[in-house]
Amino acid sequence: MAVRFEQIQDCQQTNARLGRLHTPHGTIETPIFMPVGTLATVKTMSPEELKAIGSQIILANTYHLYLRPGHEIVREAGGLHTFMNWNRPILTDSGGFQVFSLSKLRKITEEGVSFRSHLSGEPLFLGPEQAMEIQNALGSDIAMAFDECAPYPADREYVRQSAERTVRWLKRCKEAHQRTDSQALFGIVQGGMYPDLRVENAKAIVDLDLPGYAIGGLSVGESKEQMYEMISHTTPYLPKDKPRYLMGVGSPDALIRGVMLGIDMFDCVLPTRIARNGTAMTSQGRLVVKKAEYARDFTSLDPECDCYTCTKYTRAYIRHLVKADETFGLRLISYHNLHFLLQLMTKVREAIRNKQLPEFANRFLTQYYGSDELSVRF
Amino acid sequence: MAVRFEQIQDCQQTNARLGRLHTPHGTIETPIFMPVGTLATVKTMSPEELKAIGSQIILANTYHLYLRPGHEIVREAGGLHTFMNWNRPILTDSGGFQVFSLSKLRKITEEGVSFRSHLSGEPLFLGPEQAMEIQNALGSDIAMAFDECAPYPADREYVRQSAERTVRWLKRCKEAHQRTDSQALFGIVQGGMYPDLRVENAKAIVDLDLPGYAIGGLSVGESKEQMYEMISHTTPYLPKDKPRYLMGVGSPDALIRGVMLGIDMFDCVLPTRIARNGTAMTSQGRLVVKKAEYARDFTSLDPECDCYTCTKYTRAYIRHLVKADETFGLRLISYHNLHFLLQLMTKVREAIRNKQLPEFANRFLTQYYGSDELSVRF
Repeated sequence: MAVRFEQIQDCQQTNARLGRLHTPHGTIETPIFMPVGTLATVKTMSPEELKAIGSQIILANTYHLYLRPGHEIVREAGGLHTFMNWNRPILTDSGGFQVFSLSKLRKITEEGVSFRSHLSGEPLFLGPEQAMEIQNALGSDIAMAFDECAPYPADREYVRQSAERTVRWLKRCKEAHQRTDSQALFGIVQGGMYPDLRVENAKAIVDLDLPGYAIGGLSVGESKEQMYEMISHTTPYLPKDKPRYLMGVGSPDALIRGVMLGIDMFDCVLPTRIARNGTAMTSQGRLVVKKAEYARDFTSLDPECDCYTCTKYTRAYIRHLVKADETFGLRLISYHNLHFLLQLMTKVREAIRNKQLPEFANRFLTQYYGSDELSVRF
Repeated sequence: MAVRFEQIQDCQQTNARLGRLHTPHGTIETPIFMPVGTLATVKTMSPEELKAIGSQIILANTYHLYLRPGHEIVREAGGLHTFMNWNRPILTDSGGFQVFSLSKLRKITEEGVSFRSHLSGEPLFLGPEQAMEIQNALGSDIAMAFDECAPYPADREYVRQSAERTVRWLKRCKEAHQRTDSQALFGIVQGGMYPDLRVENAKAIVDLDLPGYAIGGLSVGESKEQMYEMISHTTPYLPKDKPRYLMGVGSPDALIRGVMLGIDMFDCVLPTRIARNGTAMTSQGRLVVKKAEYARDFTSLDPECDCYTCTKYTRAYIRHLVKADETFGLRLISYHNLHFLLQLMTKVREAIRNKQLPEFANRFLTQYYGSDELSVRF
């Protein structure tokens, strides 16, 4: 099997777990945050920088790479690892989410989804077989099943039919999957905001016995409490000896809460996206470095941080770069933000190891959000 | 004196010379190309990367930094070196060139230039005293005199008056210059495309006994032959024991030809600007990596190059990044292009040392431009 999960330690107070995920490109310590490299590059960052901040695995987007440069070119290059000079694990999503969120004029049938490229308008088709073929060509360590991420809000009947189709698509993905010894196929649990549909869907997907399971269709507009509720309803039906991946979630509170609910893997564009707006994640919460008040602030982005950005540059300099649209400003904030989330996950793993996760979580969140509003929930 | 030039070796076949320029932030081996860090950042590059490719000195723009973030902020930060985390030498231009090339509604008087910011439209004024005050605040190792770069073409009478005013402005710069032991003031020879005005201007400026001299007002639209002719008329009047700086020139042929005419220092935005168009400078000439023919080209940008970009990435990958507007693509090409020009200057210095400059020049230019059209001139 391409991927094997090993649970190292339970958290006695929560459902968090410490684990190791063995992949063809190395072993990942979980829980982990995965930086997103949409187009075979984590925006502004070099692979060496990603390693320097402790990125164990990155994510790349099937839909985007299918459109540009095309999976055949990546295959000819020797796969995504060689193409982008990244020799650690890669997870690729299936394109399902982007087909629904980015493309135009999509039409869903049992066969798959017809849509138009959000770039060229070209008519295209993705179904389970195509998503698997593309991911096979990309050569990621973990491939995701082709699913429909139902819109939010959506009525129960729509979500039920969509989730059931996702199970049928998953069977076809499993059938079409070509490289089972070098690439693991993860299934995705859907079911919208309906607990019973989530449970039913989780059971049906787990029946297919895959090396890992994701929870999809969350962080789509619902409240965080609703998201946590859906996770709580799902995880009891996911096997303990397989990794669990919560898709598209990356805010510090959701990462910590997700871990406590038994999630092992997360990804999100948040750290690099907010960097482009000049926003840093710091131990004191978000800092909008573009603000005028930082023009003469010669302290670092985060006084508690020892990353490259924080040891070498001031808020005043970074603000200047961001205001002047200088790429190096984005580099510095992206570097810091990714380092921040990866460090957070390192501390979360330490806290699980030391049986102090709730205490750590309370302390961290109170400092980050400036109140104990979030922390009291634990 | 803040800056001292030491000539190490003459070239017997040309006017090229090997030298050392001692500055408060270290010694530079000349002839040298200076990467341009307009806004206190060499576009897309980190200071560590600039050092890795052998940048000995960089240039920053007074006009741009005066507008953003303002020289007072840089002064408060402890000067440009601290502000931007660069501990090697920095040369700042005077803002003169940008006032003429970028700003709107400028009005020149004996006092200086009234203009409007190209960003905000705000009315501003720069004269010799202001240019010196700003550069003093920036704390560069080398400050440039405030000059007028006459337009091209311009009639003789206009150029004569402008060049004479530039001499009077230089006197005021020298007068206003505050930090003579930590910052050197270089004068700038003007005179348009009129050999006798160039000579007259050079004499008048050299009379003021400065630690270095630049040739300005070239590469403004005239032919390269005309530019070389103007340099040839000027350098005989510049003292041998002072560094000579040809402003705004960076194409490989002009660098080599400039060195042969006795120039020690060059700067140009060319390597980073063409990177933004997806163009690389290679030992085989310019390569427009965006072209469709490179979509499946899994070789490096330059087969003869051993830089980070060329040892790790393919044309196909870089083309993909450039087509997708990914910052990392610009980083990779900028890195390579700057490395290319800095390596060229290293080879030029070696060739002078080995008394083989003309042979090296012929070989290099024939390969770069794909013909011996340029090389036969030597």
